[in-house]
Amino acid sequence: MSEAHDAVEVILAKRDRGELSDAQIDWVVDGYTRGVVADEQMSALAMAILLNGMNRREIARWTAAMIASGERMDFSSLSRPTADKHSTGGVGDKITLPLAPLVAACGVAVPQLSGRGLGHTGGTLDKLEAVPGWRAELSNGAMLRQLEEVGAVICAAGAGLAPADKKLYALRDVTGTVEAIPLIASSIMSKKIAEGTGALVLDVKVGSGAFMKDADQARELAETMVALGTDAGVTTVALLTDMSTPLGRTAGNGLEVAESVDVLAGGGPADVVELTLALAREMLRGAGVDDVDPADRLADGSAMDVWRRMIAAQGGDPDAPMPTARETHVVRAPATGTLSRLDAMAVGLAAWRLGAGRARKEDPVQAAAGVEMLAKPGDRVSEGQDLLRLHTDEPERIERALAALQDGIEVAPPGTPYTATPLVLDRVAPSR
Amino acid sequence: MSEAHDAVEVILAKRDRGELSDAQIDWVVDGYTRGVVADEQMSALAMAILLNGMNRREIARWTAAMIASGERMDFSSLSRPTADKHSTGGVGDKITLPLAPLVAACGVAVPQLSGRGLGHTGGTLDKLEAVPGWRAELSNGAMLRQLEEVGAVICAAGAGLAPADKKLYALRDVTGTVEAIPLIASSIMSKKIAEGTGALVLDVKVGSGAFMKDADQARELAETMVALGTDAGVTTVALLTDMSTPLGRTAGNGLEVAESVDVLAGGGPADVVELTLALAREMLRGAGVDDVDPADRLADGSAMDVWRRMIAAQGGDPDAPMPTARETHVVRAPATGTLSRLDAMAVGLAAWRLGAGRARKEDPVQAAAGVEMLAKPGDRVSEGQDLLRLHTDEPERIERALAALQDGIEVAPPGTPYTATPLVLDRVAPSR
Repeated sequence: MSEAHDAVEVILAKRDRGELSDAQIDWVVDGYTRGVVADEQMSALAMAILLNGMNRREIARWTAAMIASGERMDFSSLSRPTADKHSTGGVGDKITLPLAPLVAACGVAVPQLSGRGLGHTGGTLDKLEAVPGWRAELSNGAMLRQLEEVGAVICAAGAGLAPADKKLYALRDVTGTVEAIPLIASSIMSKKIAEGTGALVLDVKVGSGAFMKDADQARELAETMVALGTDAGVTTVALLTDMSTPLGRTAGNGLEVAESVDVLAGGGPADVVELTLALAREMLRGAGVDDVDPADRLADGSAMDVWRRMIAAQGGDPDAPMPTARETHVVRAPATGTLSRLDAMAVGLAAWRLGAGRARKEDPVQAAAGVEMLAKPGDRVSEGQDLLRLHTDEPERIERALAALQDGIEVAPPGTPYTATPLVLDRVAPSR
Repeated sequence: MSEAHDAVEVILAKRDRGELSDAQIDWVVDGYTRGVVADEQMSALAMAILLNGMNRREIARWTAAMIASGERMDFSSLSRPTADKHSTGGVGDKITLPLAPLVAACGVAVPQLSGRGLGHTGGTLDKLEAVPGWRAELSNGAMLRQLEEVGAVICAAGAGLAPADKKLYALRDVTGTVEAIPLIASSIMSKKIAEGTGALVLDVKVGSGAFMKDADQARELAETMVALGTDAGVTTVALLTDMSTPLGRTAGNGLEVAESVDVLAGGGPADVVELTLALAREMLRGAGVDDVDPADRLADGSAMDVWRRMIAAQGGDPDAPMPTARETHVVRAPATGTLSRLDAMAVGLAAWRLGAGRARKEDPVQAAAGVEMLAKPGDRVSEGQDLLRLHTDEPERIERALAALQDGIEVAPPGTPYTATPLVLDRVAPSR
């Protein structure tokens, strides 16, 4: 039998609703990494997995096979425990920026390997690259040194971690096979487990601006990932958080850095502060640190100190002002009343179209582009009042951004009661 | 939007159980032919089609798009009507060989564009290539001339007919997406409609040695293809025929040519004669010829005359003996009683492993390899009597052939009643 025949046999097993054996999973993930299993075979298998599912054993084995495709990092030489956070991606989700230095200021090292954005949600690295001089690429040695000396590092994941996932993710992106819970869970967890963090907190977004539009799907994804992490010896917990409206008052790279600095300075939007503290508490608990209140570290400026050292250690100037966009355009309130809806997907798409995000991996992003929200859901507004400020370096982008916003803004008549959605919807802990 | 994004949109539509629009189908088939839609995108779409299906409109449009990807042939200049036959493939299915000259001898031209075999069923061209000197490749002009002068031609389909199907078939073969009725039906019918035949008879096999293991699936495939042909203006009918045991007494290339010549000479196995006549009658009826009984043309030697001219016109020597294999090996009856089962798949696999078929498109086949059946289901046999004779040029192949046969032969105790399956199980005509 040639190896191509084995690939077909694995595809047929999943296509016909069977379970893949451990040996089949090991072989197909390794074969794909080596190029023996072709892209067209893996995409057919991914579609079969998306439509027919995988059980917990299959997902765990698939994750292990992706981890085995590359190197594993080791932070056991550090003098303090480690904790990491992963968000499934949301509009205005800049939480990593204040969170990493805050948790480091509480005595836990944060090795945050991040990615760039694709589509309507921004990437953490894109945001930090708005800081003049800051570089995302670090060697493993430099990363370990910075973790020991500064306590927090946000950098690009090296090519050595779970290369199978890197290849598979790029394939899924162009073959309509992204939205499969087994593949999403194993993609995220293979990198986090290989990264070697001791504790992990997952921020699973739910709502219009999130990958998971409904809470049941989000809970299934959270439970799957918590089980994978726990089984691999990583203390893992997940929060389900609302993503029906953007987090904070900005969506865009430099805009979000500035907002994050506000939070570190003790100000910033209430929702960003709330979620930053909730995630920090979970990370500290996971790392076994229960004698520090992160709110104190925000108040006493020590989180800001770590931020400044973290930025400087990677070549960035923490005092440099954020770049400003060449053009701004104001969107006004269409009526008087209560802003009842400011849709996360609409704002995310608008920010993307203004230049904050990219359509392809190779595309550049604009540091200054994005959307500033001058009102948030629940605020009373008057007709004609400034609601949003759009920022871009290319004025021709404004029209398509406005089109994205068209059905995303609703103002209810004055006096209509407004009930805010809680930001943290649920907490998913290991079942054992 | 880049074209890659449109491909994802089409994949998502089918993945999420939607209907593809005419425009989406036209675009994706054309884009795949041009290389704008990548192999990995088409294989994901093929898997989604396999698992979620296509309705009649989608299948018709998909077929039309594949026809539009290449040239169409035109036989309207011929002085007689045309009829063609397509079999979904079975073990020992040499029917095309006696059928084409027989129908031509009845006054209907037979333009039989055929393929080579892959897997356990042999290809018509592989069989004829066992005839010394015979060549499968003809120009369109030479084909038309031979049709006019001889009345029958069996040759390789040119690269110009439905190139989208050619590319897609090769892809499906390595991605576990062969067994999708919409894709099977559109693959077969795109070539037959583009070929320009006036009438078409489909021989849809059912049973262990067939592509379709059960009658419901086979009927669905037959109905789908009959509707496609009818809608395209081709008089189309299908017979569902049994493929639980091989057709005739041989499976292999040269062995099947010799058996076909026996049929043309007025002899040959009863089942091969029965199916040849049944299909000939359907082809004549489809072509509007109702005053000739094909059995007379077998008896009077005129079908044999056409055979000899057809073979000679393509460089073959109709008087050359078939090549003989270097090695033979006899399989004996394991007990005394009635041969109750001689499984088509087991015999097909054995013939394949002896060298009659190929695992990859590039592989050569042996002209003399195959299986001779010295008894057929229903025959009384005595323990130790010769049952099968295996032929191969490479004795090391015999062991694996015997392994394939192991569970394929059953002898019932003497006196056990045996009920033969009818050869023609059903006839599927247009519903309108």
